[in-house]
Amino acid sequence: MAKEDLRLLDFWVSPFCMRVKIALAEKGLAFDSQEEDLLGGKSELLLKSNPIYQKVPVLLDSGKPIVESSNIVYYIDEKFANTKNTLLPSCAYGRSRARFWADFIDKKIYEAGMAIWRSKGEELEIAKKDFIDILKKLEGALGDKDYFGGDNFGYVDVIAISMTSWFHAYEKFGRFKVEKECPKFDAWTKRCLKRESVAGVFPDPKKVYEFVVMLRKMHAVE
Amino acid sequence: MAKEDLRLLDFWVSPFCMRVKIALAEKGLAFDSQEEDLLGGKSELLLKSNPIYQKVPVLLDSGKPIVESSNIVYYIDEKFANTKNTLLPSCAYGRSRARFWADFIDKKIYEAGMAIWRSKGEELEIAKKDFIDILKKLEGALGDKDYFGGDNFGYVDVIAISMTSWFHAYEKFGRFKVEKECPKFDAWTKRCLKRESVAGVFPDPKKVYEFVVMLRKMHAVE
Repeated sequence: MAKEDLRLLDFWVSPFCMRVKIALAEKGLAFDSQEEDLLGGKSELLLKSNPIYQKVPVLLDSGKPIVESSNIVYYIDEKFANTKNTLLPSCAYGRSRARFWADFIDKKIYEAGMAIWRSKGEELEIAKKDFIDILKKLEGALGDKDYFGGDNFGYVDVIAISMTSWFHAYEKFGRFKVEKECPKFDAWTKRCLKRESVAGVFPDPKKVYEFVVMLRKMHAVE
Repeated sequence: MAKEDLRLLDFWVSPFCMRVKIALAEKGLAFDSQEEDLLGGKSELLLKSNPIYQKVPVLLDSGKPIVESSNIVYYIDEKFANTKNTLLPSCAYGRSRARFWADFIDKKIYEAGMAIWRSKGEELEIAKKDFIDILKKLEGALGDKDYFGGDNFGYVDVIAISMTSWFHAYEKFGRFKVEKECPKFDAWTKRCLKRESVAGVFPDPKKVYEFVVMLRKMHAVE
């Protein structure tokens, strides 16, 4: 592992923190993780490092904060360009496509998933349909390729795969199966999960489910 | 002007299209503009080039579509790196800060402005306060620098200055003055407007105001 002064303000179940950990693993970069107590109280360092959003993840590179997960992954790939594995495409057009899909995922997936676990009855049916529509668009972008960028695991894969760590919970609350609705997307998920960088940071789906059950209680959905 | 095959699917009053035009002017790149009839009906080319959002701007570079305005400006800077004026900082950390603030502007300004022209009474007062709070955060990022990136007009300036083309309308509907609320931000606006790349694409503020009056009527605010 390369010697760098990298510190991650982290939260075990956050798919956004997972992205950063996957990118660091892909790059072979060691880092210190500081687990935040998001329900109890955020650290002073978090509030100071991300005054605008006050959210994890924050990556501190020799003390300098980088915030917003897609942005952090982009930074890691650019800053540590000499390490193994390049995440972003080499041409400007390929990078513009990668940024587009990362932004699409950022705008859509988490909110659509939240709409599933926060709703019941007819509202849940609409939320489920919306969620599957979004996945089908992503599946369209994947096409028949192994990964979003082509033959190699790259930027969009890092951004998207982390979100699937909550899919088991969405499937349980929404009573649907991604495998059935979007078989190519599901095959891609399984392909990514074979990578050490991904499997190594994925929490147990049952623990994620229990966490979402707690969130539902906090939001009085039960 | 350099010879490139660049075509912009455009709309005269869109601050997002303005960004692309400013970036192309900064780079000294000639392009063809195709004005879209957004109220009457979008062109087949627009629907085909941006199937996900079906929105302007779209930049076609030798026929290949690039979409989402911040992404297009980023692409222009990377693709035409050999032309005059570099918009993005040269270091990975500087670029991560530029992406962060561009994203902040994208997430906040247009919606906060829309909340002003779409509301009345107490709701309008809340919208105005939110809008000014956002501008103050941006003003904080600007600090005492001439431009967001430092001494030179750059990426975040392109992203932000285009949004100010609607500020006259927001000020009229909200009955406030940016000059009074955020004097440093206002001074930055005036500084940017001295640039040919910016002044050349800015529509007449009165015409923007009339356009917003029409939008208000369409949304039955009057």
